[in-house]
Amino acid sequence: MFPLPARNPAAASAGVYTLQVFVTEAPMLQRILVLLALLTGAAPAPAADLLPSWRDNAVKARIVAWVSTVTTPGSGGYVTPNDRIAVFDDDGTLWPEKPRPQGMFALQRLRAIADGHPEWRNRLPYQAALELGSKYLQEASDDAVLQLVAAAHAGQTQEGFRREVRSWFATAQHPRFARPYTGLVYAPMQELMGYLKANGFRVFVVTTGSIDLVRALAEDMYGIPADDVIGSSVVSTLREEDGQLVIRRLRTVHALSDGASKPLFIDLHIGRRPILAVGNVGSGGDIDMLRYSQDGRGTSGNPPTLQLLVRHDDFEREYLYDEDNQASVQAANARGWLVVSMRFDWLRIFGDN
Amino acid sequence: MFPLPARNPAAASAGVYTLQVFVTEAPMLQRILVLLALLTGAAPAPAADLLPSWRDNAVKARIVAWVSTVTTPGSGGYVTPNDRIAVFDDDGTLWPEKPRPQGMFALQRLRAIADGHPEWRNRLPYQAALELGSKYLQEASDDAVLQLVAAAHAGQTQEGFRREVRSWFATAQHPRFARPYTGLVYAPMQELMGYLKANGFRVFVVTTGSIDLVRALAEDMYGIPADDVIGSSVVSTLREEDGQLVIRRLRTVHALSDGASKPLFIDLHIGRRPILAVGNVGSGGDIDMLRYSQDGRGTSGNPPTLQLLVRHDDFEREYLYDEDNQASVQAANARGWLVVSMRFDWLRIFGDN
Repeated sequence: MFPLPARNPAAASAGVYTLQVFVTEAPMLQRILVLLALLTGAAPAPAADLLPSWRDNAVKARIVAWVSTVTTPGSGGYVTPNDRIAVFDDDGTLWPEKPRPQGMFALQRLRAIADGHPEWRNRLPYQAALELGSKYLQEASDDAVLQLVAAAHAGQTQEGFRREVRSWFATAQHPRFARPYTGLVYAPMQELMGYLKANGFRVFVVTTGSIDLVRALAEDMYGIPADDVIGSSVVSTLREEDGQLVIRRLRTVHALSDGASKPLFIDLHIGRRPILAVGNVGSGGDIDMLRYSQDGRGTSGNPPTLQLLVRHDDFEREYLYDEDNQASVQAANARGWLVVSMRFDWLRIFGDN
Repeated sequence: MFPLPARNPAAASAGVYTLQVFVTEAPMLQRILVLLALLTGAAPAPAADLLPSWRDNAVKARIVAWVSTVTTPGSGGYVTPNDRIAVFDDDGTLWPEKPRPQGMFALQRLRAIADGHPEWRNRLPYQAALELGSKYLQEASDDAVLQLVAAAHAGQTQEGFRREVRSWFATAQHPRFARPYTGLVYAPMQELMGYLKANGFRVFVVTTGSIDLVRALAEDMYGIPADDVIGSSVVSTLREEDGQLVIRRLRTVHALSDGASKPLFIDLHIGRRPILAVGNVGSGGDIDMLRYSQDGRGTSGNPPTLQLLVRHDDFEREYLYDEDNQASVQAANARGWLVVSMRFDWLRIFGDN
């Protein structure tokens, strides 16, 4: 699409180069402009076209104003691109968590091999998952879901596991929405991640679920590279088999990325405090991550930070749920986090694909 | 430096845009060309100008030929940019490991607080470090060095630790070369990382040392973002202090990134097998990482891989050492890894800064 730039003979001595850019697609032009803007540290990318699924109201305005502040030199809250770190929770923040998609993935495998595991019949969470299926996975704890994921594919190589994840999610349909799980990314969140990246942010997904599972999907589903996913893990082991080194998964949970672990895992993986953190109500598991992002204000040049908390308050288009004690919303109100209502702030929930 | 592109009126209907690029510095033009080439998937970046510190011999030719193969569509060994993952060991591969720089950093702190720790006087490795100083740090094991790092800054916040690392390394001088440690990056390796990045690679540093310490320096020293550093870690804890969440370092080693752990940590952090792995002789600690990279051939489209093993065989310009059993070199010979001689293959060891 680009010819190499030919030096303009008329302007050779002045060091002027002319690039003839033949643009046939608007998205490509947009990418080029964004890259050029980033290269040159030019003005923030415009929000108007990049957040079409967000209602034009105070919530959207606050997001846009904050991004403008941290990306505008001289704004008083300018943050260099290196420190523009954003973290997003996954289940319930980027796509639905009812029933837990990775629980559904583990379940089909547990069912297939259950005959060889009579011990699962009387032990939780296996018994509940096998007997109640997706109903159980509407309510199961993060810890229980990760135990299912670990047990279902114990012994498999990491490469084999990733292949199986991609293969199952390529066709498996959500029981209520009758489309593939991977087609259920929240459109406003997809747009928000794109808007942030266009403004020089690095965007990380911090899932409470299996890091390996989310990673196998993140590139296609979210446009996030595999290494920018942080999450829970199972114990794995390096083995020599037929003279080759392979990594195999064991059935033991290594670490659960939830609550207070999220800031620790973010620190271990990224090594910087995020200036933006996005989570959702439902378990209270994102409170520490949002606090950690906010409490970084005093530590390195006092950057303005932003925290978003998504409320599942849309019974008709998605789900309606909250914590019994409403701890997340109370923390949001006490600390000035921006509460995002799926019902009122999002013009649409899912994309067209 | 860039004006926004003005649509060329004469060519409006054809969708032709003209960018007037006023280039005053060659490096900026190079960056632009590389970015444009990557955007459009154009030809590999040329090596001739990017590897000037490498002698023009068979070693350099093999590196260049391999990069050309994996970046040229239709070459039979083409690898998409997503899978162009390169991993570099740190100490002894990117900069000298005699004496271990992070051991020297820990030592000055240990000395400063030793009066409060009488238990160190009779316990290894503290006693040896305090009594023998840099002589001990010429030979200390990775495990011992990490224990020193953990003990020296136990109780500090992660932000405070990073600040102290940057502050100390900004002025501390290497005892033999009489220049700052950060000025001792091997010039050929600095060039190789740049050459790889120009060819669409993601480059990760996999250190046996402290992930937090290397990370604090990697961006300025190597041009590697903090989150693209993998390494050993100490246990840390999330605490609320004066109403703010902070992460503090404890004195316990969490995980040593060495030997068989390197492939496991790479898998946990990156989630893909590297197609290029670079390590050095001295401890045998990079053998598994290089094998892991090579053994990926069978797993995803059979990409050609490359492994580099740096020999410290330059007594005059750097150091002369090897393992007693020469395990690394023997593995290299048996498996076809490319052995890089500092003495014969590098025209210069250090950069000019």
